[in-house]
Amino acid sequence: MTAQTQAPARDVFETMRADLLRVEARVEQAAEVEYPIVASLVRDLVRAGGKRLRPLVLLLSGRAYGDDNLDALVTAAAGVELLHTASLVHDDTIDRAALRRGKPTLNAVLSSGAVILLGDYLFAQSAMLAAATQHPRVVAVFASTLADICDGQLREMFDAHRLDQTREEYECRIHGKTASLFAGAAEMGAILGGAPEPHVQALRAYGADLGMAFQIIDDVLDLREGTQQLGKPAGQDLRQGTVTLPTMLYAAGLAPNVPEAIRLHAVVGGDDEDAAAVDQVVADIRASGALDVATRAAEEFVERAKDRVGIVPDAETRDLLAGLADFALSRNS
Amino acid sequence: MTAQTQAPARDVFETMRADLLRVEARVEQAAEVEYPIVASLVRDLVRAGGKRLRPLVLLLSGRAYGDDNLDALVTAAAGVELLHTASLVHDDTIDRAALRRGKPTLNAVLSSGAVILLGDYLFAQSAMLAAATQHPRVVAVFASTLADICDGQLREMFDAHRLDQTREEYECRIHGKTASLFAGAAEMGAILGGAPEPHVQALRAYGADLGMAFQIIDDVLDLREGTQQLGKPAGQDLRQGTVTLPTMLYAAGLAPNVPEAIRLHAVVGGDDEDAAAVDQVVADIRASGALDVATRAAEEFVERAKDRVGIVPDAETRDLLAGLADFALSRNS
Repeated sequence: MTAQTQAPARDVFETMRADLLRVEARVEQAAEVEYPIVASLVRDLVRAGGKRLRPLVLLLSGRAYGDDNLDALVTAAAGVELLHTASLVHDDTIDRAALRRGKPTLNAVLSSGAVILLGDYLFAQSAMLAAATQHPRVVAVFASTLADICDGQLREMFDAHRLDQTREEYECRIHGKTASLFAGAAEMGAILGGAPEPHVQALRAYGADLGMAFQIIDDVLDLREGTQQLGKPAGQDLRQGTVTLPTMLYAAGLAPNVPEAIRLHAVVGGDDEDAAAVDQVVADIRASGALDVATRAAEEFVERAKDRVGIVPDAETRDLLAGLADFALSRNS
Repeated sequence: MTAQTQAPARDVFETMRADLLRVEARVEQAAEVEYPIVASLVRDLVRAGGKRLRPLVLLLSGRAYGDDNLDALVTAAAGVELLHTASLVHDDTIDRAALRRGKPTLNAVLSSGAVILLGDYLFAQSAMLAAATQHPRVVAVFASTLADICDGQLREMFDAHRLDQTREEYECRIHGKTASLFAGAAEMGAILGGAPEPHVQALRAYGADLGMAFQIIDDVLDLREGTQQLGKPAGQDLRQGTVTLPTMLYAAGLAPNVPEAIRLHAVVGGDDEDAAAVDQVVADIRASGALDVATRAAEEFVERAKDRVGIVPDAETRDLLAGLADFALSRNS
């Protein structure tokens, strides 16, 4: 599958390169901080950013309906990327993570108070970018997306260490935490592009499905890959008591009192923090086939996302949006 | 002075009671959280709020030009109050404060991760209220105010433990941390009320001056009053290494190597965290007369604020705005 899907994905990044560079410049400008001590840290953080998938979703959703409003699209895309960055900064503080993408997080260098404030500062800058679009509906989507993200993160925190979760609870949580920003990005892009309302809704749904697939794959990768690929050890979610889809599927297939079930409960419940125990549970999950089942769930979301973009009139953009959905599935870090 | 100024201040709260109750209801509704564990904590936090000075500034600045847009004014006022609450939540996390207004903070009850997320959630809700005004300029003021607050708080953190600060650095910091929200509240109110541009600017300047006075008085109270009045021990700022105007004025009057100067440097620098040493520095500052000089600086800001509202055509609102400025000066907690 990988070979088949990487090609169109590479096309997206190549085709959108000029727009992405404008977004990049806007993000860096907005994230400028006066204090030399933190200025370089924030710059590194912003530059270290991933594949800029959220800005791409926004730009393509708008571009599909013309490029009259390109400046506003670039501004909103920068806002979305910076909102994502701000949320990662707070996330790492909450998890007390020392590494992200193999690099030290701000937490490794600054006091937690400074990191909280820097995250807030980046939130503020992202809100200023949203406001700069001067479009009330875009601003409203932006603000409600931020609320959805917080809600998803709060759910993750309060649902932690519990194996008795339903699939609905998991999906609701990852929708808030991850899919809402992809959905919001698509919606903001479509609005700014001047798409007709049914297209705005279809693109929002595309973004949501793509985001769900993205997070499920993230959850699979956390168990499937190790430090070399992820820049952090496998099983971080287990260590934090976060119950993801593969773990839920695996747990559902276990008899109540077998040693595997007891081990899983001890690790997820936080009663056994021993590295060997975590490694063993990771190995158990890998051997169970749960990662494949979870990956198929992600594939279904991607198929749905690709169906949704059928509505987009411009054939090239439609293919690029579909390629982006495939990329979310095929990525391995 | 107190007797003379309390009367109009009481008038403001009484006259604006109906509007304030609407703001209150809007704030409580926006701050509703689904999780029972935190729902009551957040409700308490929002209800414990102070005098609602920021919403009052916003409402009066709009009301001065008519009440056609009352619903948007109430919405924006709720947004401003919730932004203030969110910022206090993060502030308390950063300071690891256990008490505010004599009550336990969220930090005393929840993990710091949960408190960061709750603060973010309240930020999101406040942004949604600003967006709900559907007024691009109001949203822009809101977002840039949030950025100013973060900037002020970052300055406070990076300027901590340093006695070699200029008055300009102090004023720049408290402008960001405190006055910017009063300025933004006045500006948003005037915009929503449909005030002519010079009035918008005059009211913004009124808010800024009022906010400066408010923070200087806060800094004076921190040294003048004790647990009974403040709900926290005197000298908290000193303990955190925050150099405020009274401390700067006091330091400027000391010869370099007298015992008082050595003691002050040790406490502000964080080298002497002994409670008796802090108490002694508090007593030294009180005896020096620096609190009176700082209070006079606050009085000057209040006089300036009252001059600014001369532009407001409606006499009653003008008096209420002036009364609010007097209140900022006369409060003792």
